[in-house]
Amino acid sequence: MKVGFLGPIATFTDLAVQHAFPDEDRISFRTIPDCIEAVHNQEVDVAVVPLENTLEGSVHLTVDYLFHEVDLKIISEITVPIQQHLMVHPNNESKMNELEKILSHSHAIAQCHQYLHQHYRGVSTEYTTSTAAAAKFLKEHPEMKFAAIANELAAEIYGLTIMKRNIHDLKLNHTRFIVLSREERSISLPLRKQEDKTTVMVTLPSDQSGALHQVLSALAWRKINLSKIESRPLKTGLGNYFFILDINQAIDEILLPGAFEEMKALGCDVKVIGSYPTHLLD
Amino acid sequence: MKVGFLGPIATFTDLAVQHAFPDEDRISFRTIPDCIEAVHNQEVDVAVVPLENTLEGSVHLTVDYLFHEVDLKIISEITVPIQQHLMVHPNNESKMNELEKILSHSHAIAQCHQYLHQHYRGVSTEYTTSTAAAAKFLKEHPEMKFAAIANELAAEIYGLTIMKRNIHDLKLNHTRFIVLSREERSISLPLRKQEDKTTVMVTLPSDQSGALHQVLSALAWRKINLSKIESRPLKTGLGNYFFILDINQAIDEILLPGAFEEMKALGCDVKVIGSYPTHLLD
Repeated sequence: MKVGFLGPIATFTDLAVQHAFPDEDRISFRTIPDCIEAVHNQEVDVAVVPLENTLEGSVHLTVDYLFHEVDLKIISEITVPIQQHLMVHPNNESKMNELEKILSHSHAIAQCHQYLHQHYRGVSTEYTTSTAAAAKFLKEHPEMKFAAIANELAAEIYGLTIMKRNIHDLKLNHTRFIVLSREERSISLPLRKQEDKTTVMVTLPSDQSGALHQVLSALAWRKINLSKIESRPLKTGLGNYFFILDINQAIDEILLPGAFEEMKALGCDVKVIGSYPTHLLD
Repeated sequence: MKVGFLGPIATFTDLAVQHAFPDEDRISFRTIPDCIEAVHNQEVDVAVVPLENTLEGSVHLTVDYLFHEVDLKIISEITVPIQQHLMVHPNNESKMNELEKILSHSHAIAQCHQYLHQHYRGVSTEYTTSTAAAAKFLKEHPEMKFAAIANELAAEIYGLTIMKRNIHDLKLNHTRFIVLSREERSISLPLRKQEDKTTVMVTLPSDQSGALHQVLSALAWRKINLSKIESRPLKTGLGNYFFILDINQAIDEILLPGAFEEMKALGCDVKVIGSYPTHLLD
């Protein structure tokens, strides 16, 4: 099976893909749209892209592309704890007191703000396009007294030494990655399975507020629980939104289809994006 | 009165501020947090920052900062139509066929994608940190055969010639700016007034799905309409959100306070961010 993923290698997406698809043919793509288009155009069988992060919220590019551009299904989800480590080139292990710069993605530097402030206050930081790019730069410039913030995989791939593990301030930070496919199918991943989930995108008829209440009522009286509800602009004017709902159960034959039929009868547009198992990488 | 705003000058924020506060002391700040902190620290009396755009959605930095960091009130709203124009240095008016590059903010270039594809397919584009920065660069480099995409104000401030007006693909694109103050107060702006609005931020108790339905029920049975509902991560773990609700009316003495009291009794945290008039710049 060909597995596309958001590159470059050694990022958290790569980490998720290496654990979820250890024996498959893994192909990295430069952007989220490139990656999603690759499944759509049958260049790959499935694609893995980030959907949401605890701190940053939804990855709008992924959500909007799934709503506006393509008709794909989520067939699995992988939640990855975001663990950031401070690493250097092996030549520089003894030079931590002379560090001149710390490189990483802006999000990673923000995530380690308190640690850096306490331990490396005088050292300047510089943003790279990914955590992996920071690690790669270190490998290619052993003469520079730089450190990088990146994950375990980046240290391994680029032969760097982890000087301090888990320097991220918030221990609960996770990123959800989704596996996309052209049709619904069941795949088995070598990861710890958690609950099932169903994701739908709902567009309300003109009078939105009452309609959203009706949509939630159709779920609430059936005791169907949501783990997420989020609005995104429809791009047709301020105040027009569609909603992404994550429902805490697999699609069944009676309750969920019944709720969706009622929503449609109320004038909503309902698009089921997938009913799939979720996994935790640990 | 001192009015802080998200700079640099000649952006759409500056355009909003010049029309809304023509006779006040206007001070630009480099970032949204800087601008919001300036009101909080009493350096300025009010601050104007973007809250939402039709195409891009909410400005998360603004929303999150208002929720997590400060206790400020929205006292007014200004909606600005986003009209992008193609402009050059006067020296280059006759050289549109020899254009070598088109500069602008990545959003502006995305907004004019179809126009550029039809008329300037062979010309490369380059991103700047704002539309205003692109215009400024043209003024400082008259020898370069570059064009910029920016607004009317940028053309005026930097002495550029608008070669083609309104080149944005989607005509309904607007940005909502909010005026922030330390306390609730009424200010009169020389703009066309539209309806009143009340914005609240609501944090649900643990079982979210049923609770959100209850919150919306408390509003729906009172026939209180929402123009917006949006979730943002609480940053305490995946699946924990707070909600921003825009209610289509000014706060009254009975219905809204009653609904908010009920929400609190149900275990929600309710923070009224403001009840304010909205204005359209046209």
